[in-house]
Amino acid sequence: MRFVSYVRLGRPSFGALVEGGIIDLAKLIPGIDTLAEAIAEDLLADAARAVHGRKAEFAMSDVTLLPVIPNPGKVLCVGVNYVAHREETGRKPVGHPTFFTRFADSLVADGAPVIKPKVSDNLDYEGELALVIGRGGRNIKPEDALDHVAGYAPFMDGSVRDWQRHTAQFTPGKNFPGTGAFGPALVTPDEIGDVTALPIETRLNGEVMQKATLADLIFSIPDVIAYASTFTPLSPGDVIATGTPGGVGERREPSVWMKDGDVVEVDLGPAGLLVNRIVAEQ
Amino acid sequence: MRFVSYVRLGRPSFGALVEGGIIDLAKLIPGIDTLAEAIAEDLLADAARAVHGRKAEFAMSDVTLLPVIPNPGKVLCVGVNYVAHREETGRKPVGHPTFFTRFADSLVADGAPVIKPKVSDNLDYEGELALVIGRGGRNIKPEDALDHVAGYAPFMDGSVRDWQRHTAQFTPGKNFPGTGAFGPALVTPDEIGDVTALPIETRLNGEVMQKATLADLIFSIPDVIAYASTFTPLSPGDVIATGTPGGVGERREPSVWMKDGDVVEVDLGPAGLLVNRIVAEQ
Repeated sequence: MRFVSYVRLGRPSFGALVEGGIIDLAKLIPGIDTLAEAIAEDLLADAARAVHGRKAEFAMSDVTLLPVIPNPGKVLCVGVNYVAHREETGRKPVGHPTFFTRFADSLVADGAPVIKPKVSDNLDYEGELALVIGRGGRNIKPEDALDHVAGYAPFMDGSVRDWQRHTAQFTPGKNFPGTGAFGPALVTPDEIGDVTALPIETRLNGEVMQKATLADLIFSIPDVIAYASTFTPLSPGDVIATGTPGGVGERREPSVWMKDGDVVEVDLGPAGLLVNRIVAEQ
Repeated sequence: MRFVSYVRLGRPSFGALVEGGIIDLAKLIPGIDTLAEAIAEDLLADAARAVHGRKAEFAMSDVTLLPVIPNPGKVLCVGVNYVAHREETGRKPVGHPTFFTRFADSLVADGAPVIKPKVSDNLDYEGELALVIGRGGRNIKPEDALDHVAGYAPFMDGSVRDWQRHTAQFTPGKNFPGTGAFGPALVTPDEIGDVTALPIETRLNGEVMQKATLADLIFSIPDVIAYASTFTPLSPGDVIATGTPGGVGERREPSVWMKDGDVVEVDLGPAGLLVNRIVAEQ
């Protein structure tokens, strides 16, 4: 099952994707207003049963999508988690996943403009798979970690490279408003099967810029969840972006930067396709 | 005026400090439940006038303090922002402030236990001045920045050094639950006067470990606010910790680590005294 967060007729809501469009779940489930709340109450399987075989209430074109989880408590991002990307950045192997954070307001939905900041011409793409935490926890063991995943979605970890390099900490380059994207839908693990078999491809104006599979991750999804949950409690709706493959724009000869009017796509195959147009900040 | 967030009789609230204790402002201001909301509505000056000359409703000992802002939208921390600390860490000068982030659940109140994680014996103190954003903004100019400050408070940016050094990004070492502290009270700028004249002293079990003044900051408070507001919008109640002076435990010979039963104090003089006991996680 696929779930989306959206605004319809000015009202934020969330729903299930069915043939022909969306069924509004905030209307169907009393007292639950957001996808994160439905995840926290472990209601996604019930919701999937409830909408089974039902017709769409309205078309996708009738809503404005929001990021999969519009305001996550925590957005944790793994850096340099594919060998090809680690090598292109000239970094040595490290024994632990590299974590930085994004604020929720740095992310937009599928189909929304990604903003190139006025202060930089170095906006780079990073196609990634993100996971959304279902059952929360601390000190989660790798062997239990996948039981804590509510689902997956494409993620574009847009990076303002010059600001990312101002100091050793990535924070500024990863947090300009609207530079990242997260969507279109939460895809539940039963639709994915073996997550390591997922393809990942980033396209810029139709040209393939990054291409790998989730089997290429240096630190696996269970290892990333286990490590993160050691230093911070994970809660339902928290987001972990799992890192980007080789082929980023900065490391090309010459470097490729996203500019006004460009279209960036992050294609995770069965986990969804995220498409955003770049708009230069005025 | 000084403002505190607290729990009394099981109910979270906020209030003003007056002689003998606290006046409950959530009761006094209809529709405003938190200090962050009062800041967002620009009600602190009104509140100060309303409580002027009034007697305390209850004693400090009748409440359990919360962090000054219990759940800030953003907690931004500046690293290596005093020359003596930069030199002791062997880092070269950089042209911009170094920013990392803390999640709200990594912070406790004045008087609450600071937690030494089970997985590390390398918990270090960092005494700091934090500021709380009053009027929000983006692209704030340095010359306007102090107009965006609601007030100040001591901050203990407790750092799990081995986890901070796992990779180039500080995130894990700065986000273990309850490793930082923030309090006791928001002190409004009129009580501080020239913020660069503030003394800052960190004591461990009564021994002075860090001693400087806010005039020693590499990047001034206005510069820090201006830079941060370029890459992320600042909102009322957001917190910026401004960095720690030289003398951290890690860089001593031999290194000094905080252990169960230790008492750490961050003394900002007129901006307040933050006192916490270290408790080892069981």
